[in-house]
Amino acid sequence: MGEAGTPPVAIIMGSQSDWPTMQRAAAMLDKLNVAYDARIVSAHRTPDRLVEFARGAADEGFKVVIAGAGGAAHLPGMVASMTHLPVLGVPVQSKALSGQDSLLSIVQMPAGIPVGTLAIGEAGAANAGLLAAAILATSDEALAERLQAFRAEQTASVAERPS
Amino acid sequence: MGEAGTPPVAIIMGSQSDWPTMQRAAAMLDKLNVAYDARIVSAHRTPDRLVEFARGAADEGFKVVIAGAGGAAHLPGMVASMTHLPVLGVPVQSKALSGQDSLLSIVQMPAGIPVGTLAIGEAGAANAGLLAAAILATSDEALAERLQAFRAEQTASVAERPS
Amino acid sequence: MGEAGTPPVAIIMGSQSDWPTMQRAAAMLDKLNVAYDARIVSAHRTPDRLVEFARGAADEGFKVVIAGAGGAAHLPGMVASMTHLPVLGVPVQSKALSGQDSLLSIVQMPAGIPVGTLAIGEAGAANAGLLAAAILATSDEALAERLQAFRAEQTASVAERPS
Amino acid sequence: MGEAGTPPVAIIMGSQSDWPTMQRAAAMLDKLNVAYDARIVSAHRTPDRLVEFARGAADEGFKVVIAGAGGAAHLPGMVASMTHLPVLGVPVQSKALSGQDSLLSIVQMPAGIPVGTLAIGEAGAANAGLLAAAILATSDEALAERLQAFRAEQTASVAERPS
Amino acid sequence: MGEAGTPPVAIIMGSQSDWPTMQRAAAMLDKLNVAYDARIVSAHRTPDRLVEFARGAADEGFKVVIAGAGGAAHLPGMVASMTHLPVLGVPVQSKALSGQDSLLSIVQMPAGIPVGTLAIGEAGAANAGLLAAAILATSDEALAERLQAFRAEQTASVAERPS
Amino acid sequence: MGEAGTPPVAIIMGSQSDWPTMQRAAAMLDKLNVAYDARIVSAHRTPDRLVEFARGAADEGFKVVIAGAGGAAHLPGMVASMTHLPVLGVPVQSKALSGQDSLLSIVQMPAGIPVGTLAIGEAGAANAGLLAAAILATSDEALAERLQAFRAEQTASVAERPS
Amino acid sequence: MGEAGTPPVAIIMGSQSDWPTMQRAAAMLDKLNVAYDARIVSAHRTPDRLVEFARGAADEGFKVVIAGAGGAAHLPGMVASMTHLPVLGVPVQSKALSGQDSLLSIVQMPAGIPVGTLAIGEAGAANAGLLAAAILATSDEALAERLQAFRAEQTASVAERPS
Amino acid sequence: MGEAGTPPVAIIMGSQSDWPTMQRAAAMLDKLNVAYDARIVSAHRTPDRLVEFARGAADEGFKVVIAGAGGAAHLPGMVASMTHLPVLGVPVQSKALSGQDSLLSIVQMPAGIPVGTLAIGEAGAANAGLLAAAILATSDEALAERLQAFRAEQTASVAERPS
Repeated sequence: MGEAGTPPVAIIMGSQSDWPTMQRAAAMLDKLNVAYDARIVSAHRTPDRLVEFARGAADEGFKVVIAGAGGAAHLPGMVASMTHLPVLGVPVQSKALSGQDSLLSIVQMPAGIPVGTLAIGEAGAANAGLLAAAILATSDEALAERLQAFRAEQTASVAERPS
Repeated sequence: MGEAGTPPVAIIMGSQSDWPTMQRAAAMLDKLNVAYDARIVSAHRTPDRLVEFARGAADEGFKVVIAGAGGAAHLPGMVASMTHLPVLGVPVQSKALSGQDSLLSIVQMPAGIPVGTLAIGEAGAANAGLLAAAILATSDEALAERLQAFRAEQTASVAERPS
Repeated sequence: MGEAGTPPVAIIMGSQSDWPTMQRAAAMLDKLNVAYDARIVSAHRTPDRLVEFARGAADEGFKVVIAGAGGAAHLPGMVASMTHLPVLGVPVQSKALSGQDSLLSIVQMPAGIPVGTLAIGEAGAANAGLLAAAILATSDEALAERLQAFRAEQTASVAERPS
Repeated sequence: MGEAGTPPVAIIMGSQSDWPTMQRAAAMLDKLNVAYDARIVSAHRTPDRLVEFARGAADEGFKVVIAGAGGAAHLPGMVASMTHLPVLGVPVQSKALSGQDSLLSIVQMPAGIPVGTLAIGEAGAANAGLLAAAILATSDEALAERLQAFRAEQTASVAERPS
Repeated sequence: MGEAGTPPVAIIMGSQSDWPTMQRAAAMLDKLNVAYDARIVSAHRTPDRLVEFARGAADEGFKVVIAGAGGAAHLPGMVASMTHLPVLGVPVQSKALSGQDSLLSIVQMPAGIPVGTLAIGEAGAANAGLLAAAILATSDEALAERLQAFRAEQTASVAERPS
Repeated sequence: MGEAGTPPVAIIMGSQSDWPTMQRAAAMLDKLNVAYDARIVSAHRTPDRLVEFARGAADEGFKVVIAGAGGAAHLPGMVASMTHLPVLGVPVQSKALSGQDSLLSIVQMPAGIPVGTLAIGEAGAANAGLLAAAILATSDEALAERLQAFRAEQTASVAERPS
Repeated sequence: MGEAGTPPVAIIMGSQSDWPTMQRAAAMLDKLNVAYDARIVSAHRTPDRLVEFARGAADEGFKVVIAGAGGAAHLPGMVASMTHLPVLGVPVQSKALSGQDSLLSIVQMPAGIPVGTLAIGEAGAANAGLLAAAILATSDEALAERLQAFRAEQTASVAERPS
Repeated sequence: MGEAGTPPVAIIMGSQSDWPTMQRAAAMLDKLNVAYDARIVSAHRTPDRLVEFARGAADEGFKVVIAGAGGAAHLPGMVASMTHLPVLGVPVQSKALSGQDSLLSIVQMPAGIPVGTLAIGEAGAANAGLLAAAILATSDEALAERLQAFRAEQTASVAERPS
């Protein structure tokens, strides 16, 4: 699962300007050999596309949705309101408030509709890729092994001393 | 306009628990003799109702929408994304963050989809009623006069000295 | 209304340095073919001009006031205290606090005097233009159609995929 | 100066609800035997009274103005814009944001119009009384002595050990 | 999976005082018929227990870990550093800072070690239960159906009008 | 007073690096023809100099003290604790927290020891100069006239329209 | 060291009202059998006492100073500026800002004068006691053992499961 | 102690990118002739190294640990949970939130496990070096003298006037 047929992960974002951040999620999934589909879905400028995507995401074959947005970042929460798939939210760093608005708009969801929120910016996007992989790995032994290998490599890459 | 037929103002809110706050908008409109319809529309728990309401609001005959919500308050912005009517947002005071999350989620909309945001809590709700009336009064001379009378009365009610 | 005679929208700002931000409101109104008058009115350095403008705005023929200011941004609220016209406030991004001071100074108005507040900075200014148009469109069918066309175009301009 | 004739200090506040806080300024001036006049002047609900007060304050004989307000606290700054007298601002503790909005609205004044801002709430009000007295004491030797006596007494009243 | 044998979800928390919050996660899992094991694991007071739990979680048979903590909330991130299982973090509302410290300590993880963070307090705990179920449902059709039924019921329970 | 003999205003600052900010206070006093003395007094690195300065400020002939500092900005409050002269505090913009730390450290003084606090950064420094002049002007008619002339000029300098 | 003669730890606080918080430091030292002396030293109301205490602390025989204060909490930093002893700061929870002001005023010290800062409120006070003991234990083997025993006991007291 | 054999101070940091900040701690210890060992220990990427370091720090001969980290900065608190040595924490300035996340993650430790926290960034790192020296100086007379000499020199280096 995740290597062939419909990609298991959808990476969506509110606008083209979020791509430099969200690319980090894509790069992480590439590294773990997990297929994904990246799309622009603007909660505010393309609400019909949002409804269509969110309502159809499970039937399309997606298993996990990663949604990145900035400012009044409604995309992750609105997708979550229209699918039972796990939704991961990435607060994109905004201009005036550095992503504090994005973070609160994504994480402070009411009881009943969860969004698993990652850190503001590129680190959060990379981690959304990792967490999506970890979710898929709960039923994909081979992916679990690739994930563990990635983690071991990451650990090994940390130098002993600063220089 | 606003006294007979379809009410010109819709007051919507994310849940029953927002009503004690949003009632202040209703009370203000009552005072100014502007009709309204109050409904619960949850962006997260009833997304279909949200789409149906927002897409049909102009055709239903509404002129202005007042939307109150707390936390990751997506209701005002999502309604605004699906109607060209003016949308006013009221950040309801949340438990942990006192409405700072609600405020940022409502006000920090991206260019292209505006929400006219009022203060956190009851003062904001009362002012949403007032601002809705001011908007209607741009083409309703009688309402403009009632609004000015209300304002004059308000001014007159301020005592000269504290006691 | 809005295309001939007295312009229906006043765009005022606290100082020349707010113009790069507030120009976005003007540009939006230009795009929607809504006339406006742009002036500098400093609540703090020209209080008489403030009183004169606000007291006379309705009689001058304005229908909506857009006011932008930064820091202890008193301009929108003080105009609102002296007119019954709808007032929209734009928090200009400030140096030390990135517009958090501007936002709170504009949005946290007491019950009785509303200011419809938009996002910090350029997005907020553009949206103030849009919301002013939406307000005028409540009684101007032709403008309502231009607004809907703008919105449809905006939706159509969103690419399907990031690149 | 300050003991007879026109009182040298004006204590103004935005509403009756600010009096429990602002009373602390009055009590401090009482203790230092400095006369004052306490009035309600709402920047938003009584803008004419604001203009009249501020424009006439120096001619009325006031030497210092203490202004307390909460939320979008425009009173101190607007008074300062219309008088050359020293204006001291007291941020009254607000409901949702605990006075953070009041503080920023009062203190973040642009270059050209200063407001000497004190702490949020009762401590700030008491200190506004003290600072007003210190200002008057720059040209009133007797008051300077009373102020020093108050300070000495305050120092003496601090216990050596907690109990 | 999740109804028999080793429970698929571990709910851990930093102290007994977090239980009133974290019980909401347990209640949600009960409602969805997903088994779980609730334990106290303090990152700071029982670091050995933390290591033992986190290192052994996958082998014990857990599929998802929900971790709640307040203040300098290190538990979710430290568990995530020692397992490849998906970890969901719940910021418990703290005394002085209302959970703003808990939220930032949990969500701002560096690239490489993700924690899917939910809202501050009880809503976040309930949503952690829901998100854990959604994760398990990616490979458990029956659970996916129960989840959809829960969501449908939730939607149906929202009243049309406030009262 | 203020033009000859001992200068009436002391401008002190925590370090050389505060001078680019505090120069704005000096420039304003120059413009108003008020004499001043500028010194470096570090609360933390030169506490003896602090005590000596603060204890002797009144006897030296100073009438008002302007103190600028950044971060844990203790200078204004500590000077205020050792003199009965009016003390004005300028929060210098800090690196990590943009002066929010400086502002709170200066303004949140306990009842009994006031510091009249101005805005963060250069605007605050300029305003400290203006407020010091306003304080001196309470007993210096000529200075009051210069102050009013400055204010009139400032008002006149505001353009009518943005360009 | 620490059990006989001059107590090795001074616990000082800005006012009697800080004692309920700072008692937690005293209680912790009692538990670890470390002697201490508790005094009220107000940076703002008793600056001479502050200077006298801080200048004499090392000669009096103190080894570590714990200082608690709220709001513009200058006490820890000012003591640190006048002694080379290690100073630990406890931000007391303030009324309006919940100790965020106290925390920033204490922790944001400039390079050259350190204050080891603990958490806001009672947890921070207890931890100041513990850290003082840990500091003394660097040269007191018996105390190091008592500290380790306390830590082991603390670990053992954590229940396995919530109830 | 501190000049020969095992160095008394460990400087650890979460990643190579923290070194430009943490070098300031090293430079300060160099200046005071206190030996140290600098290592990279990532709480999240090398948790085993963390456990090994923290559990063995006292036996290795370290007397004080300085730990710097950014974002969800768990390193200082987790080391403190596994050693009874005094631990000093340095919040490294983070990208989006400027170290506010680092500060809260480090300082808001629960009762029982203290971390003495310094200022955000380079000033905090330098001060961690100074505080470590002050801690060692409680039982090292020669170091106490070097520390006092450093402080005297620092005082002497402050210019009298800005230039």
